Amino acid sequence: MGDCWDGKGRGGKTFEHLTTPHQYSSLLSSYDVWLFDCDGVLWSGDDLIPGAVSVLEKLRKWGKEIVFVTNNASKSRGSYLKKFEKLGIKAEVDEIFSSSYAAAAYLKRVLNFPSDKKVYVIGMEGIEEELDAEGIAHVGGTSPSDNVFLPTLDFSSLQSEEALDPSVAAVVCGFDMHLSYIKLAKAHKHLTRPGAGDTDSIKEGSPSGGGCHFILTNDDSTFPAKGGPWPGAGSLSAPLLFSTKRTPTIIGKPHQPMLDTILAAKHFDRSKAIFVGDRLDTDIEFAVNGGIARLMVLTGISTREEIEGEDKKVVPDFLIQSLGDLDVVEDEK
Amino acid sequence: MGDCWDGKGRGGKTFEHLTTPHQYSSLLSSYDVWLFDCDGVLWSGDDLIPGAVSVLEKLRKWGKEIVFVTNNASKSRGSYLKKFEKLGIKAEVDEIFSSSYAAAAYLKRVLNFPSDKKVYVIGMEGIEEELDAEGIAHVGGTSPSDNVFLPTLDFSSLQSEEALDPSVAAVVCGFDMHLSYIKLAKAHKHLTRPGAGDTDSIKEGSPSGGGCHFILTNDDSTFPAKGGPWPGAGSLSAPLLFSTKRTPTIIGKPHQPMLDTILAAKHFDRSKAIFVGDRLDTDIEFAVNGGIARLMVLTGISTREEIEGEDKKVVPDFLIQSLGDLDVVEDEK
Repeated sequence: MGDCWDGKGRGGKTFEHLTTPHQYSSLLSSYDVWLFDCDGVLWSGDDLIPGAVSVLEKLRKWGKEIVFVTNNASKSRGSYLKKFEKLGIKAEVDEIFSSSYAAAAYLKRVLNFPSDKKVYVIGMEGIEEELDAEGIAHVGGTSPSDNVFLPTLDFSSLQSEEALDPSVAAVVCGFDMHLSYIKLAKAHKHLTRPGAGDTDSIKEGSPSGGGCHFILTNDDSTFPAKGGPWPGAGSLSAPLLFSTKRTPTIIGKPHQPMLDTILAAKHFDRSKAIFVGDRLDTDIEFAVNGGIARLMVLTGISTREEIEGEDKKVVPDFLIQSLGDLDVVEDEK
Repeated sequence: MGDCWDGKGRGGKTFEHLTTPHQYSSLLSSYDVWLFDCDGVLWSGDDLIPGAVSVLEKLRKWGKEIVFVTNNASKSRGSYLKKFEKLGIKAEVDEIFSSSYAAAAYLKRVLNFPSDKKVYVIGMEGIEEELDAEGIAHVGGTSPSDNVFLPTLDFSSLQSEEALDPSVAAVVCGFDMHLSYIKLAKAHKHLTRPGAGDTDSIKEGSPSGGGCHFILTNDDSTFPAKGGPWPGAGSLSAPLLFSTKRTPTIIGKPHQPMLDTILAAKHFDRSKAIFVGDRLDTDIEFAVNGGIARLMVLTGISTREEIEGEDKKVVPDFLIQSLGDLDVVEDEK
């Protein structure tokens, strides 16, 4: 890569390893919209990546648009903002796209989810808060009646109209520390009732007993946390895929409803945007699928070996060691 | 089928629909060992199939060996016997092969599970009672510490040696009404610790940290019960398959460890045995895989249409409407 390089990603099977201040500067000049994965890029666990805050501040100063994208559905955007504040990262709620928010926005804006229908939630407060913010009614989730263990093998308690609300027209499944057989059984019933697969039937004021959408916030098999990896949202939704034989709509990276949600709010030109991520199978694949340039950092999950081997499946356009590397640019201008 | 028919199954893609007393008599004469699925064959829910008790009594009178085979792992053989007694069906414990018993027997006799190792159980009393009967130590299952909801997203409580017993050398997963994230997380950790996949390393007196077997009692996606079908053992084990990427040994029908367990105890000639079942994808496939003749009844799940259509995958040798049909034979002799 010489001085004439224009800083644009090419989407090929090779990547450019950027190492000089000139290359960093050229990259920063080339993109107007910077989308960031968070864990492994901005922070690792509870520790900031050195230089990350400074790079974000420079991007803002230069008028770049910033978007934070996370598959974490256990938090709402408001809760996520508190994590940013705690770590000293400046952010606005409308810059944050969590899979909890994107799931609620997808229901509201893409599916036109009727106001007289409800969502059955397998998940935590994050999903419920985002559904509340969109004015979508919900059951399950953190409600005490579903956060208990079924006392006996008597299923009669799961069969009443009170237990299986006929106005449920979507099941949203995300990470749930309080996953229970009651929740799985109820979700299974909603998703397999007569006509459940006919999601075109879900309209405002339509009679009950119609279609039921099946939505996963994300399908990460595991997630990183102290002592992890631990089973993730994708693993917790696996029972419903196996029992119902239905194919869900998956919101989070690498799937595209997340990008559709971001674009519906931000309206930017994809060719002017770049995604910064640490995971090939979520972040980089997400950007490849969405036609957005991709910059990989080595402060998270994926390694350089994975993009150099013969059996590489997805490759970034650019590689840097750490987001902090870009911190030197201003001094060189 | 004429009078010269010898009553032997042929394992082809067609079946004989038996309808006359002579055919019934010929079938009964041809097999010495009669293996029965229970639900859908002997009973449906809590109701006996008419004539079933009388047919079983005739088989005993004629000196036939009887074996009951069920994928239900929530009960031990002793508990199952009580169900037989309640319905007025004569049976002995050693005639009953549940997937809970077969899993314990498989660990003991096929895997030579060491006496200084433990099993981590996702499941109910049935599995624990059968492990106890084989002298195999176990943790998890119904123990109170794992039958709670993890209070917060702090996983430190799952990382101590007390939480993750290093002597665990197998995870057995069956139906569990009290499935919890704690159980999934612990099982995931046992199955993914360094060296967990090296199950050859599991020997009496070997140091901890070695291999860990992964065993499912059965992989039924759903099971029938009032108001069902409800998510079954196969659905509840789906998170671990997805999170660990490991391939488990599956004990129950249609898989063969169940038959190996029966043969190890009963030592019969497969060519003299016939399996009576109502489900093509478990019962009939089990018998096909095991080289045993198969008789299908229409008092359970599968229908005649499924064995007549172009896309039929597995076909019984013989079809009767109900086990009770065979009740007329003695009168005709």
